[in-house]
Amino acid sequence: MSKQRVLTGITTTGTPHLGNYVGAIRPAVVASRDESVQSFFFLADYHALIKCQDPELVRQSSKEIAATWLALGLDTENAMFYRQSDISEIPELTWILCCNAAKGLMNRAHAYKAAVQANEEAGEDPDFGVTMGLFSYPVLMAADILMFNAGQIPVGRDQIQHVEMARDIAQRFNHNFADVFTLPEAVLEDDVAVLQGLDGRKMSKSYNNTIPLFGSAKQLRKAINKIKTNLLEPGEPKDADDSAVFQIWAAFASADQVAEMRREFENGIAWGEAKKRLFELIDAELSAPRERYQALMDDPGHIEQVLQQGAERAREHSAQLLSKVREAVGISPIS
Amino acid sequence: MSKQRVLTGITTTGTPHLGNYVGAIRPAVVASRDESVQSFFFLADYHALIKCQDPELVRQSSKEIAATWLALGLDTENAMFYRQSDISEIPELTWILCCNAAKGLMNRAHAYKAAVQANEEAGEDPDFGVTMGLFSYPVLMAADILMFNAGQIPVGRDQIQHVEMARDIAQRFNHNFADVFTLPEAVLEDDVAVLQGLDGRKMSKSYNNTIPLFGSAKQLRKAINKIKTNLLEPGEPKDADDSAVFQIWAAFASADQVAEMRREFENGIAWGEAKKRLFELIDAELSAPRERYQALMDDPGHIEQVLQQGAERAREHSAQLLSKVREAVGISPIS
Repeated sequence: MSKQRVLTGITTTGTPHLGNYVGAIRPAVVASRDESVQSFFFLADYHALIKCQDPELVRQSSKEIAATWLALGLDTENAMFYRQSDISEIPELTWILCCNAAKGLMNRAHAYKAAVQANEEAGEDPDFGVTMGLFSYPVLMAADILMFNAGQIPVGRDQIQHVEMARDIAQRFNHNFADVFTLPEAVLEDDVAVLQGLDGRKMSKSYNNTIPLFGSAKQLRKAINKIKTNLLEPGEPKDADDSAVFQIWAAFASADQVAEMRREFENGIAWGEAKKRLFELIDAELSAPRERYQALMDDPGHIEQVLQQGAERAREHSAQLLSKVREAVGISPIS
Repeated sequence: MSKQRVLTGITTTGTPHLGNYVGAIRPAVVASRDESVQSFFFLADYHALIKCQDPELVRQSSKEIAATWLALGLDTENAMFYRQSDISEIPELTWILCCNAAKGLMNRAHAYKAAVQANEEAGEDPDFGVTMGLFSYPVLMAADILMFNAGQIPVGRDQIQHVEMARDIAQRFNHNFADVFTLPEAVLEDDVAVLQGLDGRKMSKSYNNTIPLFGSAKQLRKAINKIKTNLLEPGEPKDADDSAVFQIWAAFASADQVAEMRREFENGIAWGEAKKRLFELIDAELSAPRERYQALMDDPGHIEQVLQQGAERAREHSAQLLSKVREAVGISPIS
């Protein structure tokens, strides 16, 4: 029996921060080493074009994100790691799926509906500023998924709809033509580790409360020193469960270390001391990857080579699948 | 200076009839020999998928249409002749153009609006039965056109909008990123020869009044004998300008032959005789192509080879253009 296939898209906008690392990258890197599963990870740069019209930003972001995942030890021998735009079969499949996707389905997509609502509230035409990229990206996403016949798609709650749409389109295609596609299932990742940011809210670029993942050690220390604390003095007992410092500690520490720090809080550890230890803990985990990251950023040719090797492996799958799809719809060499 | 570029898409649904030959194929074959122009002709099989979910029909139709154009002498050395689905750069460009195409533009497309109107009249949901293929095909068409930087697009009146949309999308891309695309212009073909069908109306598959282009000589004779005439007897003068027999004659005859037949009508030629001469005239023009058509249909490998050669030549253009487009939007090897 062939291995279970799991597919994960990586958004290529913005520079990864510590919250991305704890919530998404670190568990994915662990998963990439699981030899019982065939994992697919891809840089979703065609999706980036929907939102970003700054070519330098798209370029820089793809580079930083590829370097980040590689530096953190993504197993590119076991898992597939490729750039979406290197797989020409994906947009080809997208068109064929368009012919099997109801427009009504897209009308109900969350992102589109949110754009329409915002326009209506602003008194604009409902489709003001909406591109065909924004409107039809669920079809591209269906192609991302169906191309590799991935059965399981790990998603957050807001992405369940994408997988359901892919499933709907696949069913319609299988019904119209031939049983080509595996019907994908969303695997809800409800236990995603959410890291608190500097202000205690969820760490997020939009809150401007992030700690950079691969800044220098000095920048890391500086950021950690900015984590919001209360005014309790050294020696006064502190509530670990109410502290971002402790919550972030827990995301990096072993069980023993977590228990120990909880005692330190009860014993009134000074904020400065707690932050110093937090810095040391995170820095110990990140200093080697940080060096690898810098080395990769200085050797872009190597990143490109890894991506090309990944694309070559991915295309072994995608070329075969597209050829089945083309045959099924009647596009094949004249005979 | 580089040659003027003219691009023509060929719908790959249905079997060509005499009206297609006179109105579209014959003038295009003449144009394909014009060495002062770089012509692009392509089998629009990705478009066929919008309407046709019968793979055998898509396959058979592509074969028949390619064989037809080749049998009629399309100059594939001078002109480019390729199958749309062989150019993977076209769907790739389609996605990138999607990110630069306003959804509002598609809302106004004739084909979509007609579907919505029909649904509303039937009391259905406006988008009932509308696929993303039908909704977004103007973007695919823009990619067809912009991919080869064609300046001139010969179109019928109902297709002007497609070229205008391609122009709009190109302008938006050029404005957002870089001056990559030539702005295409629609060249209205108002003088397209319209052939009358068996019943005197325009020859059209939807009127079921067609004469097959490459039926046998016997089938051709039989079809011509079915052309509707009036009850005037031999010897009674007949009105040439009111006769489908004469109109079809005029589409195949030299100026001298037209003048001569007009005299014969005035002199009261029998309908049987007029039809006999019409058959002989058309058969003389079509018998050699008909044989070549049969030979091609019996040698599908040769058709495929010609299409592959065409695709190879077309991809010299498309690969170069797509690479400029990718560079402009920020998708390029990591460096």
